Amino acid sequence: MFRLALVIISIFLLALNSFSQELDKNLYELSKKIVRTALIDRKGYSWLEELCKIGPRLPGSENSIKAIQWAKQKMIDAGFDSVWLQPVMVPYWVRGNLEEARIVKSKRFKSRKLSITALGGSVGTDKNGITGEVISVMNFDELKEKADLVKGRIVFYNRPLDYGEVEPFAGYGGAVNQRSSGAIEAAKYGAIGVIVRSITTKHDNVPHTGVMYYVDTLPKIPAVAIGYQDADFLTEAISKEPELQVNIKLSCKKLPDVLSYNVIGEIRGSEYPDEIIVVGGHFDSWDKGCGAHDDGAGCVQSMEVLDLFKRLNIQPKRTIRCVLFIDEEQTQTGAKEYAKFALESNQKHLAAIEADRGAFTPRGFNADTDSATLNYLQSFLPYLNLAKIDWIRKGGSGVDVSKIKNTKALFGYVPDSQRYMDVHHSDNDTFETVHPREFELGSAAMAILCLLLSEKGL
Amino acid sequence: MFRLALVIISIFLLALNSFSQELDKNLYELSKKIVRTALIDRKGYSWLEELCKIGPRLPGSENSIKAIQWAKQKMIDAGFDSVWLQPVMVPYWVRGNLEEARIVKSKRFKSRKLSITALGGSVGTDKNGITGEVISVMNFDELKEKADLVKGRIVFYNRPLDYGEVEPFAGYGGAVNQRSSGAIEAAKYGAIGVIVRSITTKHDNVPHTGVMYYVDTLPKIPAVAIGYQDADFLTEAISKEPELQVNIKLSCKKLPDVLSYNVIGEIRGSEYPDEIIVVGGHFDSWDKGCGAHDDGAGCVQSMEVLDLFKRLNIQPKRTIRCVLFIDEEQTQTGAKEYAKFALESNQKHLAAIEADRGAFTPRGFNADTDSATLNYLQSFLPYLNLAKIDWIRKGGSGVDVSKIKNTKALFGYVPDSQRYMDVHHSDNDTFETVHPREFELGSAAMAILCLLLSEKGL
Repeated sequence: MFRLALVIISIFLLALNSFSQELDKNLYELSKKIVRTALIDRKGYSWLEELCKIGPRLPGSENSIKAIQWAKQKMIDAGFDSVWLQPVMVPYWVRGNLEEARIVKSKRFKSRKLSITALGGSVGTDKNGITGEVISVMNFDELKEKADLVKGRIVFYNRPLDYGEVEPFAGYGGAVNQRSSGAIEAAKYGAIGVIVRSITTKHDNVPHTGVMYYVDTLPKIPAVAIGYQDADFLTEAISKEPELQVNIKLSCKKLPDVLSYNVIGEIRGSEYPDEIIVVGGHFDSWDKGCGAHDDGAGCVQSMEVLDLFKRLNIQPKRTIRCVLFIDEEQTQTGAKEYAKFALESNQKHLAAIEADRGAFTPRGFNADTDSATLNYLQSFLPYLNLAKIDWIRKGGSGVDVSKIKNTKALFGYVPDSQRYMDVHHSDNDTFETVHPREFELGSAAMAILCLLLSEKGL
Repeated sequence: MFRLALVIISIFLLALNSFSQELDKNLYELSKKIVRTALIDRKGYSWLEELCKIGPRLPGSENSIKAIQWAKQKMIDAGFDSVWLQPVMVPYWVRGNLEEARIVKSKRFKSRKLSITALGGSVGTDKNGITGEVISVMNFDELKEKADLVKGRIVFYNRPLDYGEVEPFAGYGGAVNQRSSGAIEAAKYGAIGVIVRSITTKHDNVPHTGVMYYVDTLPKIPAVAIGYQDADFLTEAISKEPELQVNIKLSCKKLPDVLSYNVIGEIRGSEYPDEIIVVGGHFDSWDKGCGAHDDGAGCVQSMEVLDLFKRLNIQPKRTIRCVLFIDEEQTQTGAKEYAKFALESNQKHLAAIEADRGAFTPRGFNADTDSATLNYLQSFLPYLNLAKIDWIRKGGSGVDVSKIKNTKALFGYVPDSQRYMDVHHSDNDTFETVHPREFELGSAAMAILCLLLSEKGL
């Protein structure tokens, strides 16, 4: 009975509270219009198609510069108040044309090709490639245990993403150290190269790349990802014939840093033009698929947020600024450059929203803010729910906006995540895997959040 | 300040309340195991693949009987305590081999084929088909206004699903009367046939079928759905050349009712075997694609709920019963038969859950129950959230379980809905469009709900 009484009193008070925090009818109607307009026009979705046709956007590449010019022009054509490029030097790693692996010196599997791709940042090989026996390990502990066997061999990091994790991002987090630090760890024991089982939720044979690191105190050895099916094949092959050897040839290399740009566009606030709400994603991608979900979608959705304000003739009180950050995947120079600008400018960065988790149906927003602000933000839910946002929770925002140190709140847009690791950093990340309605609801969700932040403040 | 005080008091009391309703650690751990097991094993998903290979399951068809036998055998093999078939007479409509439409008598478009399919229940034509001019209307009001023009013509119901609706089901609800009652309305004014723009969110050319009705007091005229793109084409064609004629040939027909079955399997409760928790979907489908999402998925997820209990060696206190209802799409004879049995049996039907909204990522449960029960059910959310269930709301359960009149609560499982109308009732509804993780989370969500209902009661 005590419980029941508590429930009743709580509900009564919450009802009273939500009644006192009554909806702003005008903002509610605008929010509805934003959702309808996004879903009917599918304008951002057609922008994304254009962007994907340019191709993937490896920093420093010709494509990436074309894409930057494309985005700038789209923002100008859409009538944003200011549009500019913020220069920044970015790393310039290129894959080149040669990328192959095959089994050599084997009775049963000789000449069998393996579906691989160089990890981002890997050194290449000479024209003969590297050749060696393969030693499979599940983690760095096992690597250490088998240290004596590593010298002169290729280390095969074989631990899959944990499919039992309900959040693919958690599974990713549990597997990614093999990719990012695997070459460093293997080099400690004299390995000549590294093969990493792709971090993916899809049981296909498409390799998934991603950034990897070296340290200057150890030899830099080549590192590749292998498709899930070929990882299974290789596991079986070396268990049957441990003495088989694999040859890997890579032409990838790192060139000197080059000039690139963040793309920035804004609609100036009518009442508080110096209070800034940032919405953005990262404009670089890996050179796989077309970087549709990662993160062409987040960028175009951010552009569409401002475009929805223009289409619906909404004049925000505060400035809404779209920032497309370059070089997130490798060294975050774009984010650092913008954060520096934010800190040094006279403007107040009220909030920043990052979209970098794919273009699936909206679920919620992570908020990196204090508890009182988080509590206040719950009053936004009836509006955001119109675009399928069910919650705002304490959580991480994103790699880029988290560099901005002087905001009241940082947000991470959280769409459904179940399909994301199927496509992430791979040739699966194509425009065709983006669903127009799911994509557009993301634009709408972020537009409503920007509208509320702009009109109600924080 | 008043508001703030209310917020603080409410949160304090809610915290106190949730503290007093502390989690059952054992049930929480079991729920986690259910999610992990479903995601790792992907067993239901592989069952669905088997089912889809049998083909679509139009009531009365050979396929549907094969599928019924398949499901019964799976349940027996999985070790359910009882498995049985519940006989029921079902309608037997067949499509036959002939189904085509083309433009005839036209200067510009002669012989142009149209992508059509007969609506479920439509009468066929003689071998020459029906031929007539086409009159496009957006709704029954416009039909009435144009009544004088209808006689001897084919009525083209041209209203699309409203893309601006955030819920595709709402868009569907706003367009479906053209399909279900269009032939009746058109026959009132002497139309010779009906073409209906497919109810879909996808801009392709695949026609979407679905049930349609006649009344005995009016002529029964043939009715077809037309693909979205060809609906656009036809709209333009008749605006340019209103006198063009369309010929439609259909071999579909209704045969006498035949015997079919609901498939039922259960795990008997250890403490309250006569308290029943039903979980189910409908086992019939249209003869398009393989009825993967609609509703092979819901059926196999329901089967997997019980199988997860077996796999994890969970002995429920109450009886969990899987019911695969036949003939939902047409006349719901299966649901009526089961509901009659439920009413007449000495067992108490505590709750029933229906899965018939596709196999996408879980979002919530609709609950058709009284407010006190609904309030109590909120205490299930921390468990259900492990399988991505964010809410339990008052709402409709489903066509089948809502026939069961003597339960404490009826539930409708609500997955993400944005892609559902792309595939619904069409050749797009294939196994390949089902995502293993999204599917398995649905099984897990319903298994957790069954577990909680079984162990905690209602």
